[in-house]
Amino acid sequence: MVLVATRNPLNIGASARAMANFGYSRLRVVNPYDVAFREARSAVGAAPLLQKAEDFPALPEAIADCHLVVGTTSVGHRELQHPIRRLEYGAKLMQRALVQGPVALLFGSEKFGLSNDDLSHCHWLMRIPTVDQDLSMNLGQAVALCLWELARDAKARQAHPEPLKSASAAETEQVTRLLLDALEQSGYVNPRTAASTAEKVRRLVRRLDLAAKDAPVLLGMLRQILWKLGDRATGE
Amino acid sequence: MVLVATRNPLNIGASARAMANFGYSRLRVVNPYDVAFREARSAVGAAPLLQKAEDFPALPEAIADCHLVVGTTSVGHRELQHPIRRLEYGAKLMQRALVQGPVALLFGSEKFGLSNDDLSHCHWLMRIPTVDQDLSMNLGQAVALCLWELARDAKARQAHPEPLKSASAAETEQVTRLLLDALEQSGYVNPRTAASTAEKVRRLVRRLDLAAKDAPVLLGMLRQILWKLGDRATGE
Repeated sequence: MVLVATRNPLNIGASARAMANFGYSRLRVVNPYDVAFREARSAVGAAPLLQKAEDFPALPEAIADCHLVVGTTSVGHRELQHPIRRLEYGAKLMQRALVQGPVALLFGSEKFGLSNDDLSHCHWLMRIPTVDQDLSMNLGQAVALCLWELARDAKARQAHPEPLKSASAAETEQVTRLLLDALEQSGYVNPRTAASTAEKVRRLVRRLDLAAKDAPVLLGMLRQILWKLGDRATGE
Repeated sequence: MVLVATRNPLNIGASARAMANFGYSRLRVVNPYDVAFREARSAVGAAPLLQKAEDFPALPEAIADCHLVVGTTSVGHRELQHPIRRLEYGAKLMQRALVQGPVALLFGSEKFGLSNDDLSHCHWLMRIPTVDQDLSMNLGQAVALCLWELARDAKARQAHPEPLKSASAAETEQVTRLLLDALEQSGYVNPRTAASTAEKVRRLVRRLDLAAKDAPVLLGMLRQILWKLGDRATGE
């Protein structure tokens, strides 16, 4: 589980406690509000889990070894570019993916949720179907619900046939970077809108849901294309 | 929902918020720690629900109009005289009972849970199956889980969201062709093994299971890259 830019130490502590309640142990925090994180570390109850929590300066490093990255959202008013799944169904998909390897579940800050940049690293989003979409859930409670659903008759779900193993987030991001390089070098990217193009490309690559075996092949293709494009640039 | 002898205002507030999230409105508190209750009442977010909360000096009055009374427990070490049901099953029974009339769900104090006297008013008990029975759940999180299970629509579990519309075979093949062109032009394809490379690329592109909306975007990218590669070829 990855907490991004969480500010309230009580929420970090409550999240860790829910993880302990349902048998999850790997907590990662990205850019936590420092005081909050220190306070949460010294809180009672979930101490061992928090002591082992890993602290990352940025999201890509925190999810590098995960082959499925799921963001949480209260939907709200932003236009979201991702497929959104209800908790009940999303948890099932995550459960299946967990058979293959690490899966990241992302929670954003209490106030703003996940940023658009954070979201662009996600394969899809999950929402908890509440009565009133304008009244967001308390972070610690949302975490508890998601983990409860994930842990829910987990064994039943492991009976599904094994799908193709997916590429890790690090590999997927590498493909994204090389594709963006190729697009820049070929003049596809308008410098004025480069940031939004990067987000669009990142989301598109996530939708491809690359298989682990395909990632190195695509990287090889892109490197060759880049080499040729660079060759041209040098030749000028 | 009935909170008995709750002490922490944050927990009362979090419980009220979860009720609002899942469409429950009748909160009753029995013998709350007075300061806690006043503090919770003045907290943001769930105010209307808390304002309407009914305050009772003792449990019997608080549950008088309910035809089913369910206590929650973390089991722990007490010898319990009641049937205990897991949350998933208990919530179903409560749903059925709700058709007939009001049902009370009781939560005890953070420290001691429900007293034996409180329990004697219950028809049966419900527990949340956690990994370690000795590590109790946070009260606000336990409340959220119970209400989520109660509100959970059995149908929703089967209702899959609409998947992204897939690209047509023609579009997929067009992407394949342009990608192969780019690979040829950049020297990726060994002429002696060109046929097998084409097959591999074709299979790889199919595994991507392109979304209909992504196909034209990818085609645009590939055309731009091809144009730049061709530019180079012409320049030679």
